[in-house]
Amino acid sequence: MVLATSPETAPLSDQELGQIHAYWRACNYLAVGMIYLKDNPMLQQPLQPDHIKYRLLGHWGSSPALSFTYIHLNRLIKQQDLSIIFLAGPGHGAPGVLGPVYLEGTYSEIYPDKSEDIEGLRKFFKQFSFPGHIGSHVTPETPGSIHEGGELGYSLAHAYGAVFDNPDLIAAVVVGDGEAETGPLATAWHSNKFLNPIRDGAVLPILNLNGYKIANPTILARISDDELANLFRGYGYTPYIVAGQDPETMHQAMAATLDACVDQIHAIQQTARNSGQAERPRWPMIILRTPKGWTGPEEVDGHKVEGFWRAHQVPMGGMHSNPEHVQRLEAWMRSYKPEELFDDTGRLIPELKTLAPTGHRRMSANPAANGGLVRRELRLPDFRQYAIEVPKPATLEAQNTKIMSYFLRDTMRENPHNFRLFGPDETASNRLNAVYEVTKKAWMAEFLPEDLDGSELARDGRVMEMLSEHTLEGWLEGYLLTGRHGLFHTYEAFAHVIDSMFNQHAKWLDICKHHVPWRAPVSSLNILLSSVVWRQDHNGFSHQDPGFLDLVTNKNPDVVRIYLPPDANCLLSVTDHCLRSTDYVNVVVADKQSHLQYLSAEEAIKHCTKGIGIWDWASNDDCGIEPDIPDVIMACCGDIPTRESLAATAILREEFPELKIRFINVVDLFRLIPEREHPHGLSNADFDTLFTPDKPVIFNFHGYPWLIHKLTYRRTNQHRIHVRGYKEQGNINTPLELAIKNQIDRFNLVIDVIDRVPKLLSAAAHVKERMKNRIIDCLNHSYTEGRDRPEEANWTWPH
Amino acid sequence: MVLATSPETAPLSDQELGQIHAYWRACNYLAVGMIYLKDNPMLQQPLQPDHIKYRLLGHWGSSPALSFTYIHLNRLIKQQDLSIIFLAGPGHGAPGVLGPVYLEGTYSEIYPDKSEDIEGLRKFFKQFSFPGHIGSHVTPETPGSIHEGGELGYSLAHAYGAVFDNPDLIAAVVVGDGEAETGPLATAWHSNKFLNPIRDGAVLPILNLNGYKIANPTILARISDDELANLFRGYGYTPYIVAGQDPETMHQAMAATLDACVDQIHAIQQTARNSGQAERPRWPMIILRTPKGWTGPEEVDGHKVEGFWRAHQVPMGGMHSNPEHVQRLEAWMRSYKPEELFDDTGRLIPELKTLAPTGHRRMSANPAANGGLVRRELRLPDFRQYAIEVPKPATLEAQNTKIMSYFLRDTMRENPHNFRLFGPDETASNRLNAVYEVTKKAWMAEFLPEDLDGSELARDGRVMEMLSEHTLEGWLEGYLLTGRHGLFHTYEAFAHVIDSMFNQHAKWLDICKHHVPWRAPVSSLNILLSSVVWRQDHNGFSHQDPGFLDLVTNKNPDVVRIYLPPDANCLLSVTDHCLRSTDYVNVVVADKQSHLQYLSAEEAIKHCTKGIGIWDWASNDDCGIEPDIPDVIMACCGDIPTRESLAATAILREEFPELKIRFINVVDLFRLIPEREHPHGLSNADFDTLFTPDKPVIFNFHGYPWLIHKLTYRRTNQHRIHVRGYKEQGNINTPLELAIKNQIDRFNLVIDVIDRVPKLLSAAAHVKERMKNRIIDCLNHSYTEGRDRPEEANWTWPH
Repeated sequence: MVLATSPETAPLSDQELGQIHAYWRACNYLAVGMIYLKDNPMLQQPLQPDHIKYRLLGHWGSSPALSFTYIHLNRLIKQQDLSIIFLAGPGHGAPGVLGPVYLEGTYSEIYPDKSEDIEGLRKFFKQFSFPGHIGSHVTPETPGSIHEGGELGYSLAHAYGAVFDNPDLIAAVVVGDGEAETGPLATAWHSNKFLNPIRDGAVLPILNLNGYKIANPTILARISDDELANLFRGYGYTPYIVAGQDPETMHQAMAATLDACVDQIHAIQQTARNSGQAERPRWPMIILRTPKGWTGPEEVDGHKVEGFWRAHQVPMGGMHSNPEHVQRLEAWMRSYKPEELFDDTGRLIPELKTLAPTGHRRMSANPAANGGLVRRELRLPDFRQYAIEVPKPATLEAQNTKIMSYFLRDTMRENPHNFRLFGPDETASNRLNAVYEVTKKAWMAEFLPEDLDGSELARDGRVMEMLSEHTLEGWLEGYLLTGRHGLFHTYEAFAHVIDSMFNQHAKWLDICKHHVPWRAPVSSLNILLSSVVWRQDHNGFSHQDPGFLDLVTNKNPDVVRIYLPPDANCLLSVTDHCLRSTDYVNVVVADKQSHLQYLSAEEAIKHCTKGIGIWDWASNDDCGIEPDIPDVIMACCGDIPTRESLAATAILREEFPELKIRFINVVDLFRLIPEREHPHGLSNADFDTLFTPDKPVIFNFHGYPWLIHKLTYRRTNQHRIHVRGYKEQGNINTPLELAIKNQIDRFNLVIDVIDRVPKLLSAAAHVKERMKNRIIDCLNHSYTEGRDRPEEANWTWPH
Repeated sequence: MVLATSPETAPLSDQELGQIHAYWRACNYLAVGMIYLKDNPMLQQPLQPDHIKYRLLGHWGSSPALSFTYIHLNRLIKQQDLSIIFLAGPGHGAPGVLGPVYLEGTYSEIYPDKSEDIEGLRKFFKQFSFPGHIGSHVTPETPGSIHEGGELGYSLAHAYGAVFDNPDLIAAVVVGDGEAETGPLATAWHSNKFLNPIRDGAVLPILNLNGYKIANPTILARISDDELANLFRGYGYTPYIVAGQDPETMHQAMAATLDACVDQIHAIQQTARNSGQAERPRWPMIILRTPKGWTGPEEVDGHKVEGFWRAHQVPMGGMHSNPEHVQRLEAWMRSYKPEELFDDTGRLIPELKTLAPTGHRRMSANPAANGGLVRRELRLPDFRQYAIEVPKPATLEAQNTKIMSYFLRDTMRENPHNFRLFGPDETASNRLNAVYEVTKKAWMAEFLPEDLDGSELARDGRVMEMLSEHTLEGWLEGYLLTGRHGLFHTYEAFAHVIDSMFNQHAKWLDICKHHVPWRAPVSSLNILLSSVVWRQDHNGFSHQDPGFLDLVTNKNPDVVRIYLPPDANCLLSVTDHCLRSTDYVNVVVADKQSHLQYLSAEEAIKHCTKGIGIWDWASNDDCGIEPDIPDVIMACCGDIPTRESLAATAILREEFPELKIRFINVVDLFRLIPEREHPHGLSNADFDTLFTPDKPVIFNFHGYPWLIHKLTYRRTNQHRIHVRGYKEQGNINTPLELAIKNQIDRFNLVIDVIDRVPKLLSAAAHVKERMKNRIIDCLNHSYTEGRDRPEEANWTWPH
């Protein structure tokens, strides 16, 4: 195995070489300045401790290679008029991105106080990684960024997501060798099996082997070249290596290699586009092996720094105690010869200015990286046309997600280049397969003849399935942040696999919404949780976890929404709402099995618009003109709990005809919290009108019960809200058996009511006993027959 | 690139071939029986619909290859007297594991009602994937399992964890090609850079390319052989391929390949052990390419099944509606010729019985897979010897985790083969580097000369660092489940990366504790969250997330514990407790920066034993013999909130000397919930004694504030508990600035008290104003100087 090497050409003329190196020196000068200086940015005076920040925060190590890559991409953009966006996997190397972004003028355009002069530069330096100011990662405030890079692992998936359906875009993504050790990154390399050279753009991964993490060598930097090349060929790429540290050689090698890569990308695309045949090519990727902290101090206080882990953050400290270090810092900064790079006003000299692209060709100003700018509204069919007839509530069953799938199918038909559906191998399992009538699963790997029999694969499919929730979520985020639309559906329990990605995306939206007015709103991240906790017939305990919702409630209320539609028409209404919204994470919980149907289309729209409401047909507390006060409130949230609450209500109304029951269903979970805590929150007055101020509430919930307590602890007499939900009791259970084990079933709910409504207590002992016996009967039946009794399984509301 | 192939030998004699094939037929017969039958297990009568379960649940697709691998390993174990454990990545293929486990007798020994006769077999069949009975994955109830396999991605990391410090053990792990697409699995291949052939055992990965997931081809089955071999060579393995479907050929190929692999493993180990030189070898791995649903129906109702995704779960349904399917099922089962395999009583014939190993050599009875059996108690030094002197509370500072590290260091010294420390590249950053005095970081990749200067690497190190939280967590779980001890420390925010792994491990422990009495207790999974939300000076918003605790509180209270020690001596006491405990997940939150010290060793032990307590020295509500009733309770939990609560208390006591303040610190978070909800919960009476029934509580919390409400919503007058915590307000902030933004700072706490203690209201407007001004001063200082004012930063308790 011979390692792939870069072409042995030297495409840069002496002048070009000098210029690009000068530009890079300017970038490195800025990076050092950002980390160290709060004043004297152009070193017009000898450097003094007073010019240096007290707390030195930031990461030097990965910055030089980031700017090196950035400006070589600039050269290509200029030369070939390319549309490229830049993703920095090692996001803490922000100085290596902010530098070139500032030098090409975008930063000053957006943040005029960081002007292209000495005063602007002073602020730019001082405010970097400084309290309340410029973040130390490639945050949403950074022009051109769609990837913060604080949490490692997702850069490559984001890059692929960005170029899907963006045929003219190249996403250049620097992957750090630290990040490359993470699981999500390690599998994201396989994204090339889903990239179609005809209708998608290209990703150019640049794996930067600077050799070290915080205090460790990296794995990929310490295996043989043979293994390294094998690995990336195995992932399906053609790897090119650019290795060294001598700037002159490296500039030529990087220029030659980038030329070759972009030529290869264009050749691949042209072949495919001219022929109409999309076969999986071996896309190029670059292994850029450079010293960590390249061009920084070689050693400090007797310790190796450049090319070693000690260069990771701030390579030299003690600036206010060690005068020699101040001298060394000054010498280091002056080694970039700023006087050759900037004019007297602190502005990059015109000769270098011209090296950067202009306008929207600047990677920091590419509209694709401010996706809301290029986002087109979805053409949505009227969801009412998919609604099912519900002549009487709770009498017929349907598969809610299947009904939803028709709406999704036509949404995909109407928006053929603008919407994708993402899920780990479960589109059919989650009953969404109607979409295959319009588009298949994207598949660029090998086909077999039998695939024609239901595998639903196609080179040009837009249903994205890979058994990696990380990759899917990353693709979708990249797709949304570049202005498109989509929906991710997954097993409820395994949504936890992407907990941390959800956190990061919610934080990204939070910052954009509150602090980055120039970012146009992007489509919401829509997550459908199906295959829910209550129906793990095949799988049991390990597949039962409704806790993703708990996580979601921890994020800023301005960016998260949770919906639990009880039936198909509600799911349609909620889906329509979510697909139209921007800048949220919408989490929708809907099981894929058959469920009772409750509301007509119009009723569903009303109910979902309110988000919470009394179901009159199930209530008997409001018989006259003056509303009576109910004895008990049966509340529920989620498809399966709703059914059990209704069945309990039916039993109660039969057993205790005099008992006044109010039945409340919750679709929009955040209606439960006070209005000052969440934009969807109910006022206390409205809450008390619905729930009364003091009557017992038996709340049957889809998830962990204490989540409801967390949302309602401020409500009047919250102690009377008795919540049932999943409490980690499960195995291979029938649906009713699992409900019983966790006490969300009809019989336990009846007992709950009896225990909490004083006026029932004396007369109800026999009913309670009967409920207990029915529980025993149900369990016995499931243990012997392996399924629920038809009596309960086929229950309908007794009209 | 020529694909690695298996040796072209045929090691099995005709008799051996016949026998092993017969044994495999028996396994497959059992697998089909488990999925379909509830009666007539030996087909003594013609098969009737009545013999067949109503709900057919389970997964046939991956089962045959699992048992195929299992019994070929049996052959090797017998032949060479090996110690091997078996991990099934595709855990839903449990029938392929349960079959051989039953046939080798272990199942019946442990579950006598599943005896080795017809009645036992009937129960074994009927109860598989049946309500309340045998799970459909390789659950903790499965003898020999340390890996449930329900959530995909962790099998390989578990296998490596199992063999660390187990020099004579081989972990044979079948990795499914579905699972291989997950991120965690994709990076776990790199675990071979951390496996030392001298002191560790070996992992033999068998990648089963059966080609399909639920409804999709798999990526690795649809790339070229060239890419496939490159990929695994790139990962550092020597791949052997065993491909085909003809049983005779496949048995010979598998036997020959396993012989070759085990020979290679032994050769590697002997070379290293004889020479004392541990270099990284290219360990063997097997690519087993077999049809999905191998030996099952080729087609059903005109659709291809064997070798296609349709074989994933139940290949043929409609058993109670389609008589032809019943006939086909019978024919399928009889194709294995059960009459040749089992005697009249339903027991495997003696000739085949002898093929399995016996006693502890059975993979289902290997003590390593019931780790509690071989677990040795840690030799723990007395943690008091590391305690720091605290002459007066809240006057001196120390780095809590650094103090802890001396205890960990000596623990590792005293338990050199029995304890490992796991963390993603942050051991030094989290101030735990004292452990390097005893053992270094494990590193089997390349060394460079500069590594001698502080990289702390060694071939025989037991500090495990890789930038993959998934791999680390998986290693540790494997290490614990095979009877050893360890601690995982990580960035608090990025603990969310392993949320789902935590869930699965907690569920595993839950089942073991409540339903699997034969599993001996294993050491607790200890997770230290450091680099916490409040001190992200370098990193900002993306690194601020204390929500892992919310997740932990969702799991069964019998298996989870959360500790937030406020100072070094408390951290020592808590660590000692956690290291001694079994069968828990212990989560400890402790920041790595300098913090005020409060308690002496003895006080810390008392405080941590109680888990919650009044700090008299900070309180002034108990001056006489009769305890007074406080006006307000200042409660806190977590190192940074404790300091701010104390500082607030000091201000309050100066400003309002007449105000009676009770100061309560919480170490053990679960003390807050009622005793019937958690074993550590306080009774309501005790809670009211501490917090009074009605006085305002200002609770300063480390995490999201609503977690405290979730834990205390049942307490008396819970509305008076006012909680401050992190509420997603952050950036690059100084410590005090971040506290202020989230209102956990001293000044806001004083305002909170003023707002809630009626008797202060009239007189306190000027104090409130002063607090607001101090907040403004502090923020201004941090915005201009980039650090907190010494006045607040160096605050100590005014004794």
